[in-house]
Amino acid sequence: MAGNTFGERFKITTYGESHGASVGVIVDGVTPGVEIDEAYIQKQMDRRKPGQSSVTSPRKEYDIVHIESGVFEGKTTGTPLFIILHNHDMRPEAYGSIQHAFRPGHADFTYLQKYGIRDHRGSGRASGRETAARVAGGAIARKLLERRGVDVIAYSQEIGGIRCDTFDETAIEQNAVRACDPVAAKDMIRKIEHLASIGDSCGGIVECRVRGVMPGLGEPVFDKLDAELAKAMLSIGAIKGIEFGAGFEAAAMLGSEHNDGMNSSGFLSNHAGGIVGGISNGQDIVFRVSVKPTSSISVPQQTINVDGEEQEIQTIGRHDPCICPRIVPVVEAMACLVVEDMYKRQAAMLG
Amino acid sequence: MAGNTFGERFKITTYGESHGASVGVIVDGVTPGVEIDEAYIQKQMDRRKPGQSSVTSPRKEYDIVHIESGVFEGKTTGTPLFIILHNHDMRPEAYGSIQHAFRPGHADFTYLQKYGIRDHRGSGRASGRETAARVAGGAIARKLLERRGVDVIAYSQEIGGIRCDTFDETAIEQNAVRACDPVAAKDMIRKIEHLASIGDSCGGIVECRVRGVMPGLGEPVFDKLDAELAKAMLSIGAIKGIEFGAGFEAAAMLGSEHNDGMNSSGFLSNHAGGIVGGISNGQDIVFRVSVKPTSSISVPQQTINVDGEEQEIQTIGRHDPCICPRIVPVVEAMACLVVEDMYKRQAAMLG
Amino acid sequence: MAGNTFGERFKITTYGESHGASVGVIVDGVTPGVEIDEAYIQKQMDRRKPGQSSVTSPRKEYDIVHIESGVFEGKTTGTPLFIILHNHDMRPEAYGSIQHAFRPGHADFTYLQKYGIRDHRGSGRASGRETAARVAGGAIARKLLERRGVDVIAYSQEIGGIRCDTFDETAIEQNAVRACDPVAAKDMIRKIEHLASIGDSCGGIVECRVRGVMPGLGEPVFDKLDAELAKAMLSIGAIKGIEFGAGFEAAAMLGSEHNDGMNSSGFLSNHAGGIVGGISNGQDIVFRVSVKPTSSISVPQQTINVDGEEQEIQTIGRHDPCICPRIVPVVEAMACLVVEDMYKRQAAMLG
Amino acid sequence: MAGNTFGERFKITTYGESHGASVGVIVDGVTPGVEIDEAYIQKQMDRRKPGQSSVTSPRKEYDIVHIESGVFEGKTTGTPLFIILHNHDMRPEAYGSIQHAFRPGHADFTYLQKYGIRDHRGSGRASGRETAARVAGGAIARKLLERRGVDVIAYSQEIGGIRCDTFDETAIEQNAVRACDPVAAKDMIRKIEHLASIGDSCGGIVECRVRGVMPGLGEPVFDKLDAELAKAMLSIGAIKGIEFGAGFEAAAMLGSEHNDGMNSSGFLSNHAGGIVGGISNGQDIVFRVSVKPTSSISVPQQTINVDGEEQEIQTIGRHDPCICPRIVPVVEAMACLVVEDMYKRQAAMLG
Repeated sequence: MAGNTFGERFKITTYGESHGASVGVIVDGVTPGVEIDEAYIQKQMDRRKPGQSSVTSPRKEYDIVHIESGVFEGKTTGTPLFIILHNHDMRPEAYGSIQHAFRPGHADFTYLQKYGIRDHRGSGRASGRETAARVAGGAIARKLLERRGVDVIAYSQEIGGIRCDTFDETAIEQNAVRACDPVAAKDMIRKIEHLASIGDSCGGIVECRVRGVMPGLGEPVFDKLDAELAKAMLSIGAIKGIEFGAGFEAAAMLGSEHNDGMNSSGFLSNHAGGIVGGISNGQDIVFRVSVKPTSSISVPQQTINVDGEEQEIQTIGRHDPCICPRIVPVVEAMACLVVEDMYKRQAAMLG
Repeated sequence: MAGNTFGERFKITTYGESHGASVGVIVDGVTPGVEIDEAYIQKQMDRRKPGQSSVTSPRKEYDIVHIESGVFEGKTTGTPLFIILHNHDMRPEAYGSIQHAFRPGHADFTYLQKYGIRDHRGSGRASGRETAARVAGGAIARKLLERRGVDVIAYSQEIGGIRCDTFDETAIEQNAVRACDPVAAKDMIRKIEHLASIGDSCGGIVECRVRGVMPGLGEPVFDKLDAELAKAMLSIGAIKGIEFGAGFEAAAMLGSEHNDGMNSSGFLSNHAGGIVGGISNGQDIVFRVSVKPTSSISVPQQTINVDGEEQEIQTIGRHDPCICPRIVPVVEAMACLVVEDMYKRQAAMLG
Repeated sequence: MAGNTFGERFKITTYGESHGASVGVIVDGVTPGVEIDEAYIQKQMDRRKPGQSSVTSPRKEYDIVHIESGVFEGKTTGTPLFIILHNHDMRPEAYGSIQHAFRPGHADFTYLQKYGIRDHRGSGRASGRETAARVAGGAIARKLLERRGVDVIAYSQEIGGIRCDTFDETAIEQNAVRACDPVAAKDMIRKIEHLASIGDSCGGIVECRVRGVMPGLGEPVFDKLDAELAKAMLSIGAIKGIEFGAGFEAAAMLGSEHNDGMNSSGFLSNHAGGIVGGISNGQDIVFRVSVKPTSSISVPQQTINVDGEEQEIQTIGRHDPCICPRIVPVVEAMACLVVEDMYKRQAAMLG
Repeated sequence: MAGNTFGERFKITTYGESHGASVGVIVDGVTPGVEIDEAYIQKQMDRRKPGQSSVTSPRKEYDIVHIESGVFEGKTTGTPLFIILHNHDMRPEAYGSIQHAFRPGHADFTYLQKYGIRDHRGSGRASGRETAARVAGGAIARKLLERRGVDVIAYSQEIGGIRCDTFDETAIEQNAVRACDPVAAKDMIRKIEHLASIGDSCGGIVECRVRGVMPGLGEPVFDKLDAELAKAMLSIGAIKGIEFGAGFEAAAMLGSEHNDGMNSSGFLSNHAGGIVGGISNGQDIVFRVSVKPTSSISVPQQTINVDGEEQEIQTIGRHDPCICPRIVPVVEAMACLVVEDMYKRQAAMLG
């Protein structure tokens, strides 16, 4: 594994497992002289933490942000920031029963195949716990983007088959599922609570909008803006697909429908999702990701153990029946990291 | 732009515009001592070239493969291969009329915003011509994967709203649209011919399967196998989305439905698309990409010119009314590049 | 600054300033299943720490090693190791007087020019304190190299103009200056003690030998083994030059003298320093680095302050009058990092 | 081998062997809108080519520059430049006799060890021929640096033990050895001609000065400006050492002598060679490299063949008895590449 660094000129490197002493992130390439404090980062951490509501895991990850380097007298110095999050609520014993069996949907089998060794306390490095470090690093990128007038929001657009019919931005942080439609949100919550009661789980679709991006960002040929965003999103464990603008619907459109015409006021539509030829065109960047249903369920499932013997398994623990509400800040964090990095790459080219 | 290199240990670097003297690729990190010849690469180039059938552009890109380095007495030496494809059928004059206007769906506007300068002969570096170099480089990766017993195939699964109902592998290279259903293929061809006759275009969905991959490939956290494949695919100009396994349908499934159980014979389903936690599990890797309708159409469209003046535009030229048949070998090439690189990264970790 | 990561397949990323809460290192790309413990790393840290003898700074850096991730039940898991070293003896007040003036030989001026902001408590990120994280990361590389039969040693060959006349390997860790000649060592110690008494400092030459390396390591053209070692060494603050084998003396030799002939038993000489064409030839890799005299001296020097006003400055503090003895383990650590990474790159090429 | 790319934001990727059809370079990350033509690059190529004088190889490498992409109407477009140099004077038969024996000082043995296969026509990829691509790529960097007011010169300071006593910049390009002292130059030429007559060779020391660099360039900790320059220089085949400013002499200086004091007019000396803490301080960047004597000599030497049998070898061919005059433009090219890249990295950090 040498895949724990993300970005080229604005970079994060993370470490940490579900049951280790801490998770953390080194943020490199930070613009110097920018005011930053722990409270700003903490705000994002709190949006990701479990135990926020009835629809999230009751597990406690205090996730108190500590900046250990790179900030002097309240400002970034240009040297790497290190942010550490000490783990507190590690209960390895809760996982004892699944020590030798491969949990369906989890990376237990693939990690063992890859490394020949596995930290069987929870999911080790494959745990969603790892995303805490992303959100901390992403908060630094978000701060830098604020100064550029760039704003990144994500929200649940569909959960358990229930779709949002309206887009009410003010509603997003007011409901437990971070849906953009407060009416649909109620149905989603009911659905999730029901699934939790029967030990099952569901997925959903999260949409993200990046607003205020200058035209001209993205590095063709291989490092297109949408290519980098796609990598960033698919690097999040539960995400199984991404589409930009019209996305998969574009496959059934005519060229004359899909092309975004222009008049002197700008573009007439945004089927491209704000990116053409891998470069931002100044419209909102819009993409959606598919979030799979949480793998940890207490419904009995068929599996094998490390000796190849068949057995039934139930994943008992403190899990989210739907990860969408908590994946929203992770999606935002990754989008912030990509966009800030792209601004810096553009500056390098012209500089 | 410093985004013309792809891969970490198996790398390609490409150059070339639609109307330059040549396009080419330097392939670095090649295993030494492997037999390779130009004919092997040429076969892949011929699958990508225009003018193959009634549904592709009549433009002539001869694309004759020349290996200029890295091979000695028929075997790779471990030093970089350089493959050059000389351009022959460059007709810049055909593009004169669109010199000052932004073609909808094209990167004319975004390139000008990014670079402040634009090669207005065709699409310059944003042209699909660029993918010729990818296919040449991908052929080397394909050769190395053959020795590992890995096989990569892609095919049109949907074109212009018409879906394949069956999967007949032998049919794929026998029909002009590279569809996996010979009956649907006929409808697709009719649809494309009709659209061509009225100057419009359509898109589709291409599916790719990577078979024979060992379990354990992929570098979590950020360089997951699916993340790298997503980047690779979204780096292809016309592709607007990707999904693995159940993909966007996973969003509406229950955990108990989506999880792939196991018995002593292996996995009971493949909703994950062969990748769990970013690591291959030994099943087929399966993903689908959304291909947008070709932007170049002769239907009149509304746009502006470089001075911001509104005007109508028709893109006259020799364009593919649907790019799916020719994007199939490009999808395969990029998948080959990712998978071979991942084998090498795995070897590095263990080595 | 986005230069805090070193290596390609075996990577370290470090953070930390002289007066921050901690310094640390994330080690990525670690071979899984290798036994490692904190004591093994601690041993290397103790060789680098100040206060070892009369010739090193009396400053106390306890540098107690804590592994916070990547090891499970005493073995590496393949996921990133994080090693943290908490700072204890931070006395910023001791630096108050030099807050506004540029210390000659220090990076005060250049950091301010680069970042427009400066952490004036000690040397911030430019402090030698940063090398503690290198030694911790290098210890992991050393462990992996041990399994390959590779051994890395460095030693002072010259200090303050006094040269070693003999090479006695057993003497190195037995004298306070880590010289390879126990007689010369005594003179060196006397010289350093004298310089310390008058507030001045001296430099020296450190030689490093890497033994047991297989032939074939190194990635020409740009990533030659000697090129990577040169980068690694010049990245250490106090080092101002490097030479391999005959090095600068080669400039005055004839080809017939310098070329290393071969007979059936192997090479007849080692003027090349074990690397030809950027690739190891199986002989010992031998290089020497020039270490400048410590910049912090209490002899009065002429400088300016941040307002451009001329002033005299004396650097009062707890500094090493000669850094050679403590740079030895840093040189070894960096050499270990390069060589292990090169083994992994070779494995990738062939794998 | 995946080491054929150099640079981060301004990058070159090269290919080509001594006896292939061509050598070439893809230059990525080029600032758009810059006027460039082939004649500008050709001028640098001509300084490197063989056959310039009595002291260089009579081999003919015409090295006519062809730009095949990335320039439109005389200006860079921001897309990659590809520069090709067709080989003309390939005489593999001249090398027949050394097909099976390892030439001392050459990479014959190490390449075979690394790759298990060897292109025995000349030195293959290990040939100095490869540096032609560097000079072509470096010319683009030089052009960009000109616009910044940065100027890079190198020259022979010592050849065959004969040192320059004066520094006469105007003399450099006026004598066949590119020495900075016209009197010493005559002795050097005589020495080289004598060695050529007896089939032997010599080395020398080349010094390089980078003038007009802004203070603040360089990316600590690992990507220090001197570290990157050291890697760049040691990546040139014949170079065996590098030192900055006082370099190896610093080892015998006192801190009070070596530290560069400041007054209100600037620095009082330049023992640091213009770089402190890995960051430029605005003074001239000054470094020297040690160039080994050319390995190809016709003096009989002892070696073995691929079967391990001892034999005598004479390298007959058209070789430079001293490579210093022709390495000067290569040193400059590599320095240009590093410095331009560092400007772009600085722009990224601040941008």
